[in-house]
Amino acid sequence: MERHFERDLEELKQRLLWMGSLVERAVHQAVHAVLDADERLAATVLSEEDAINEMQIEIDERVQRLLALQAPMAVDLRFLLAVSRINSDLERIGDQAVNIAHSATRILRHPQVKPYVDLPRMSELAEAMVRDSLNALVRGDLDLAQSVLARDDQVDRLRDQIFRELLTYMMENSSVVYPAFELILVAKNLERIGDHATNIAEDVIYFVAGRDVRHPALDRR
Amino acid sequence: MERHFERDLEELKQRLLWMGSLVERAVHQAVHAVLDADERLAATVLSEEDAINEMQIEIDERVQRLLALQAPMAVDLRFLLAVSRINSDLERIGDQAVNIAHSATRILRHPQVKPYVDLPRMSELAEAMVRDSLNALVRGDLDLAQSVLARDDQVDRLRDQIFRELLTYMMENSSVVYPAFELILVAKNLERIGDHATNIAEDVIYFVAGRDVRHPALDRR
Repeated sequence: MERHFERDLEELKQRLLWMGSLVERAVHQAVHAVLDADERLAATVLSEEDAINEMQIEIDERVQRLLALQAPMAVDLRFLLAVSRINSDLERIGDQAVNIAHSATRILRHPQVKPYVDLPRMSELAEAMVRDSLNALVRGDLDLAQSVLARDDQVDRLRDQIFRELLTYMMENSSVVYPAFELILVAKNLERIGDHATNIAEDVIYFVAGRDVRHPALDRR
Repeated sequence: MERHFERDLEELKQRLLWMGSLVERAVHQAVHAVLDADERLAATVLSEEDAINEMQIEIDERVQRLLALQAPMAVDLRFLLAVSRINSDLERIGDQAVNIAHSATRILRHPQVKPYVDLPRMSELAEAMVRDSLNALVRGDLDLAQSVLARDDQVDRLRDQIFRELLTYMMENSSVVYPAFELILVAKNLERIGDHATNIAEDVIYFVAGRDVRHPALDRR
C-alpha cells in the first residue's frame, strides 16, 4: 500500500511537470508570435489550449483520488494541497498565453510601434520564474523558490517601464494608440504570469517547509 | 466525533462568508473611491488589506486541520477542496480592490476624463457575481452558480466597451492619456474580479454536483 502511494505521488509530480512544460511552451510561442510577427505561432498556441485544460482536469482527479483513498498526513497532505493549487496557477498561465496569442493577431494588423527591447526581457524573466518555481518543487529547493519571489519586483519594474514608454508613444502619435495598447495588454499578461509563478513558489515553500509565506507583512510567523 | 466535524464545517463556512463580505466591501469602496473622487475611501481599502490576508491564512489552516484529522470522503472532501480554492480566489479579489484603490489615488490627481456610466454598471455586475457565487455555496444552489457563469460575458462586453471609448478619448486628446489609462486598469481589475467569481461558481458546482464544469468545450463530461 505504502509503496503504491509513493509511486502514485511520483506519477502525479511527473504529470504536473508535463503540464508545466506545455504551459511554458505556450507562453514562449505566444510572446514570439508578437516579437517575430509570426501569426502561425499564435495559431499554434490557440490550438493547444484544450490539451492544457484536459491536463488540469486529469491532475485534479488524481489529487482527489489520492486524498480520498490514502487520507495522507503532514508532508504528503501538504504536497497534494500544493499540487492542487499549482495546477490551477498553471492553467491560468495557459490562459494568459492564449490572451497574448490573441493580442499578437491584432498587433500584426498594424506597423510595428517600436523595436522590442523590454518586452523580450520581461518575457524571459517571467518564463524563467515559471520554470524555476517548478524546478524548486521537484528538488524541494527552498532557495530557488525564494529567488522566484525576489524576481517578481523586477517583472513589475519592467512592466512600469513598458507602460511609461508606450503611453509616451500614444501621447506623441495618436495613430499608434491601438497597437501600443495591445502591447500594454501583453505586458499585463506577462505581469500576471510572474504573479502566478510567485504563487507557485509560495506553495512550494509551504509544501517543503510547512510555512506560509504568502503575507510576510503579517506578524504571525 | 461526527457532530463535532459537522460543527467545524459549519464554522469554516461562516468564516469563508465573513472573508467574502470583507472582500466585497473592499471592492465596493475601491470603486467608489474612483466614482466619487473620495481619497479617504481608497485609504480605507488599503488599511484593511491585512485583515483579508490574515483571514485567508486562518481559513487555510482550518481546511488543513480538517483534512488531516477527519480524512473526509466524497461531498465533505469536495467541500474542503472547494473552500481551499475559493479562499484563494477571494484573497485575489482583495488584491484587485487594492489595485483599484491605488489607481483611484492616481486618477484623482487629474480632472475627470468623462462622466462615469459603464464603470458603475460593470462594478455592480462584478460585485453581484461575487455575492451570488458565495450565496450559491451557502444554499447549494446550482442554478444561481450557473447564472454567475452566464454573466461573465456581460462583464467582458462592458470591459470592451470601456476600452474602446477610453482609447477614442486618448486618440482625440493626448492630455487625457494618463488618467484614461488608469480607468482602463480599473476596468481590467473589475474584469479579473468577474473571472474570480466565475472560478468560485465553478467550484460550487464541483462541490454540489461533483461535476467539473471548468472546460465545457472539452467533450469529457
